[in-house]
Amino acid sequence: MARPTPCLIVEREALDHNIATIGATLPGPRLRPHVKAFKSTALARRLADAGHRNFTCATVREVEGMAAAGLGDDLLLANEVLDHEQLARLGAIEANITLAVDSEEGVRRAAAAGISQVLIDVEVGLPRGGIAPDLAGRLADQARRHNLEVRGVMGYEGHLMMIHDRVERIARVEKAMSLLLRAAADVGGDIVSAGGTGTYDVNTWASEIQAGSFVVGDAHYATLDHPFRQALFLEVSIISKSPKGWLVANAGLKALGMDHGDPIWPDGDVLFCSDEHTTLAGPAIDGFGLDDRLRLIPAHVDPTIAKHETMWLVDGEETIDEFPIDLRHW
Amino acid sequence: MARPTPCLIVEREALDHNIATIGATLPGPRLRPHVKAFKSTALARRLADAGHRNFTCATVREVEGMAAAGLGDDLLLANEVLDHEQLARLGAIEANITLAVDSEEGVRRAAAAGISQVLIDVEVGLPRGGIAPDLAGRLADQARRHNLEVRGVMGYEGHLMMIHDRVERIARVEKAMSLLLRAAADVGGDIVSAGGTGTYDVNTWASEIQAGSFVVGDAHYATLDHPFRQALFLEVSIISKSPKGWLVANAGLKALGMDHGDPIWPDGDVLFCSDEHTTLAGPAIDGFGLDDRLRLIPAHVDPTIAKHETMWLVDGEETIDEFPIDLRHW
Repeated sequence: MARPTPCLIVEREALDHNIATIGATLPGPRLRPHVKAFKSTALARRLADAGHRNFTCATVREVEGMAAAGLGDDLLLANEVLDHEQLARLGAIEANITLAVDSEEGVRRAAAAGISQVLIDVEVGLPRGGIAPDLAGRLADQARRHNLEVRGVMGYEGHLMMIHDRVERIARVEKAMSLLLRAAADVGGDIVSAGGTGTYDVNTWASEIQAGSFVVGDAHYATLDHPFRQALFLEVSIISKSPKGWLVANAGLKALGMDHGDPIWPDGDVLFCSDEHTTLAGPAIDGFGLDDRLRLIPAHVDPTIAKHETMWLVDGEETIDEFPIDLRHW
Repeated sequence: MARPTPCLIVEREALDHNIATIGATLPGPRLRPHVKAFKSTALARRLADAGHRNFTCATVREVEGMAAAGLGDDLLLANEVLDHEQLARLGAIEANITLAVDSEEGVRRAAAAGISQVLIDVEVGLPRGGIAPDLAGRLADQARRHNLEVRGVMGYEGHLMMIHDRVERIARVEKAMSLLLRAAADVGGDIVSAGGTGTYDVNTWASEIQAGSFVVGDAHYATLDHPFRQALFLEVSIISKSPKGWLVANAGLKALGMDHGDPIWPDGDVLFCSDEHTTLAGPAIDGFGLDDRLRLIPAHVDPTIAKHETMWLVDGEETIDEFPIDLRHW
């Protein structure tokens, strides 16, 4: 199978290692993989085959796609939805769906749209969605009055993912989770959903962890003390070579998530990215000629994958499978 | 027509103003609009209707799409292509196509793929594609020996787009273009193609300007002394509101090009973007409630548009047309 460039590739061995590694710490339903990281039902199926059959989603589109792919055993939409049309789409999906709510209006609209299960989203320090811990119990009562089943709480400690000192990371996650557990006691239900790749092994307070990026990795998370391997690369071709000392590759910031900065070229330097080019420099460029291929490590995996139509699973140079990125858009 | 959020909207009045404004300075073929900025044949057709029927493309996919839409009068692929499969695709397109070349290998492969017209791509200071000005004439001779028609030169002064001092901008563009004109004298042909939105009115040396971003604008180019108006916005809905003083909108860095930083909210502050959220703050949030809509200005238009399936043309709040973003991917 010839791979056109630019393209995303996933190294099979690293992927298998990452899935096995997280499963050793978070077996079965202790991990609720977040599909927003990879947006592919084919890749989600690999996680389901490894025993993780409950998934986290960020968009209605992700929930629809997972349900259509037969992966709808237990789908958490870990995000508020207020729009009537989007709620109607959600209510029409044939799957076991739980929606995050953080307001009375959200509760009312969810109930009106035929949603039957919710989690109370609690703010644990990240300035984003989530109700104050003290008010979570009251919102749960309101939800029950609307005949919604309240399965528990969620609270994402996103501001703590990248704390490099492990002792500090544990201490601060414990503090955030104490807020969530207090809310959980008021709310009731079995689920305390939290965490991400950054805190997957230190957040021992949540009943389930919503990690996703660990599956394929990126340059940002690679700076943490984690056992995951880099599995995702952007494969590019050299289209120009200057005697002044640079190479030009045929992909740039339209093929890469750029919010964490430039990609990494393990053999040399990334000078800059433009729309459809990356300029590379350093002694290693002597070893490359026109139309040669090389691999860049994306700085941020989630938005990188969301820019592509497909990922190619490779074993060394050989293409062995394709993961269509079928959960994109909204 | 109900617009789902998040979505890209284009304000009709600003769009019309931008197209009319550039046409006053660069009428007809003096402007060769760069479709990479907006990746939509429907929007390209508006430019063709305004008299600009020659277009610039950055990818094979863009050339294919423009040709299929009947906009193939004169398509310049302003980028090197070395890959045999991509060259075969290019050779198979029924349109008037000109390819940029900057190497002997590129010339050989273009000729072998049935390409008939080229421009010599000249490096004028941006460390990216392009041959040294002194070598351009020799490459043109080689191209002619391969029976390629050499239509002239191109040289993109991308490093000069954002010089805020107009006098300095003019002086440095003149210097860069003197390199290109020297190459043009050696190369022959009628075309001297260069420029972009940043230099559209100061680059008086090129025979045609490859501007694209001016069509809809972004926060980055808005800092220049240009007469263009902001036409493109990301429309989002509020899904959460915290008594601590922030709003959460339902779109983030997967809906925005982030290489130039966060989007701008004209009414207040953007605290940060995450994958599917933007957190907003400032006094103006008091005026917004759950499910209200607001508009963000993307920091960089080209990669923002490339993340979406469609743009909605609006007149105030009313949706009046749709521009499918049909030239995405590679």
